[in-house]
Amino acid sequence: MTDPVELTQALIRCPSVTPEEGGALVLLQDLLEGAGFTCTRVDRGGVSNLFARWGDKGAAKTFGFNGHTDVVPPGDSGLWSVMPFAGEVRDGEVWGRGAADMKSGVAAFAAAAVDFVRETPPDGAVILAITGDEEGDAKDGTTALLDWMDEQGERMAMCLVGEPTCPETLGDMIKIGRRGSMNAVVTVTGRQGHSAYPHRAANPLPALAALADRLASEELDKGSDHFDASTLALTSIDTGNTATNVIPGAAKMMLNIRFNDHHSGSALTEWLRGEAAEVAGRFGVTIDMAVKISGESFLTPPGELSELVSGAIEAVTGRRPALSTTGGTSDARFVKDHCPVVEFGLVGQTMHQADERVTVADIEGLAAIYRRILQDYFAV
Amino acid sequence: MTDPVELTQALIRCPSVTPEEGGALVLLQDLLEGAGFTCTRVDRGGVSNLFARWGDKGAAKTFGFNGHTDVVPPGDSGLWSVMPFAGEVRDGEVWGRGAADMKSGVAAFAAAAVDFVRETPPDGAVILAITGDEEGDAKDGTTALLDWMDEQGERMAMCLVGEPTCPETLGDMIKIGRRGSMNAVVTVTGRQGHSAYPHRAANPLPALAALADRLASEELDKGSDHFDASTLALTSIDTGNTATNVIPGAAKMMLNIRFNDHHSGSALTEWLRGEAAEVAGRFGVTIDMAVKISGESFLTPPGELSELVSGAIEAVTGRRPALSTTGGTSDARFVKDHCPVVEFGLVGQTMHQADERVTVADIEGLAAIYRRILQDYFAV
Ligand SMILES: [Zn+2]
Ligand SMILES: [Zn+2]
Repeated sequence: MTDPVELTQALIRCPSVTPEEGGALVLLQDLLEGAGFTCTRVDRGGVSNLFARWGDKGAAKTFGFNGHTDVVPPGDSGLWSVMPFAGEVRDGEVWGRGAADMKSGVAAFAAAAVDFVRETPPDGAVILAITGDEEGDAKDGTTALLDWMDEQGERMAMCLVGEPTCPETLGDMIKIGRRGSMNAVVTVTGRQGHSAYPHRAANPLPALAALADRLASEELDKGSDHFDASTLALTSIDTGNTATNVIPGAAKMMLNIRFNDHHSGSALTEWLRGEAAEVAGRFGVTIDMAVKISGESFLTPPGELSELVSGAIEAVTGRRPALSTTGGTSDARFVKDHCPVVEFGLVGQTMHQADERVTVADIEGLAAIYRRILQDYFAV
Repeated sequence: MTDPVELTQALIRCPSVTPEEGGALVLLQDLLEGAGFTCTRVDRGGVSNLFARWGDKGAAKTFGFNGHTDVVPPGDSGLWSVMPFAGEVRDGEVWGRGAADMKSGVAAFAAAAVDFVRETPPDGAVILAITGDEEGDAKDGTTALLDWMDEQGERMAMCLVGEPTCPETLGDMIKIGRRGSMNAVVTVTGRQGHSAYPHRAANPLPALAALADRLASEELDKGSDHFDASTLALTSIDTGNTATNVIPGAAKMMLNIRFNDHHSGSALTEWLRGEAAEVAGRFGVTIDMAVKISGESFLTPPGELSELVSGAIEAVTGRRPALSTTGGTSDARFVKDHCPVVEFGLVGQTMHQADERVTVADIEGLAAIYRRILQDYFAV
């Protein structure tokens, strides 16, 4: 038996802050090769990634796991009760950066896969696609792995991303999709002037306020079958003018939209540009907009994959998970173009915080659920 | 004859950047005492001020001049064609910091007063109240002079402030009042959160945008008999949040109101607070407001004083000045509580800029107009 808790501790001791590999992928490669996995490092653009397959390439039944070993920086060490990279167990919990997000998840699926293929070699293949760049801009991470897999003819029939997904208790939620996310930077340019002579200036701020009010008041939708309502959040408005007798020449606004399957990034971009053009014309200012779409919304409709995962969770925990599409973005947004994908992992409450930690029992439970998923998948 | 151009040059050579006296008041005191003026330095709070009177204290006919010798900093010396404190004459113009605002004005009324009392000693008194803090926060400047005069029983029957008032040509405008000015700093506080979960946060920015839009759209009035319409200028909105996945906890707005005699600072403050309270309630955020009233609006209605000044201008230049209340604030806002006050001085186009300058002819013209004002005032 491979101990997923010891493996989590060993991985936490690899200081793999994005984009450092930190020894984490090397450690996993050793373990997986020892269990008969064929491993390939798929490094790109300074990022380290690991592809591992047990069984035949191109097997019809191929189950995939995706995860990441990179972590966000520990931040102020004074806020931690432990050394963030010591991988300590205290009071029944594993502590350290990556304990929740997601060295434990990677350890759990690696341990489950190794034990499963050793003890009950399936008729098919198991793939592990592990990236060292999920917390960064993710441009050379899972994307690089999937590009390389396409070139090599490597396919997964379905894939589970091991990110933390549970709000409260192990097994209470899986993610079957995610809303899309996009950011816009809006620059309103007018003409600087003196506060006492506003008619000689073109103040960008009333236009910006009108546009901000208009956008923030818009109800994008009321939600859809599997998604919450889309939301638009103004995240910053900045001018940088400290002189009370000066009307500023320009001001800037940033906003973030999380959108469901009623929308596409391009349609929302068009809407934003239309609203900006209307306001620009009305106020006699110039409005520029830079839009970045981080990911479109996607959904793996409830069915074979979600049933497989829900069933395994129920068998191990007695709990039936909610099928959710809430939260931020994850690498599932890339995997969904390759095969059906869902996300399931630990309780994520402490992720990205000081004193990040998960219970030993949850790591063991997660490894058991992953093992059960493999058993059930190949039993059919 | 006292040469107002040479006196302007000598004053420019005193580097009297607020609150430095720089030798300017000492120089004027020498000149005035030589002509029989009784001088008192009325320094307060690190600021130097000069009070000078010719004639009897308490004389029924007492004409006052008010002005300042402090100047704003020269700024980037690379932008100047001359040394800002050299007081050079080039191509018929006096160049340097304070050439327009307002060492020329002080030189012109000092020269006019000295020559007038020497050549045609009047039955009455002439007061010069000159401050070294008009460009700063003005708390210990003209206010200190007026406080001291009250204590001493020194009175002016009417007063002329020698600030630059002419937009294009010497004599085209006098100011018979000013709009009031007030600044507000509005802080909207909500609750920080993650962009993906806006319902768990209380974003201050939609509330701020709604309030900004509401305030900027308000027509305060359409102007009054002697005043332009009141104006509200949003001068800055700032948040300082750079993380696109974070909803900020607070944001700040600054605004400036220039208001005419339809309003008072306190009534406008009440209006602002009412609007803020309505928005705060509607959006579930807290809105704090810090208001500073720089000065209430005031008007010296057209009459004896404006006629006296207009007549002198017409006699010297052939031009009939417009009676205006436009522009920023000046120390006339303090003098108005003491006696009727108007403002008249040079063309102010280059004030506060690099290469500040005025024509030699205009300084001579201004001194002649001030002299004529004294003659006409005491001739009655
Ligand atoms: Zn993660
Ligand atoms: Zn001035």
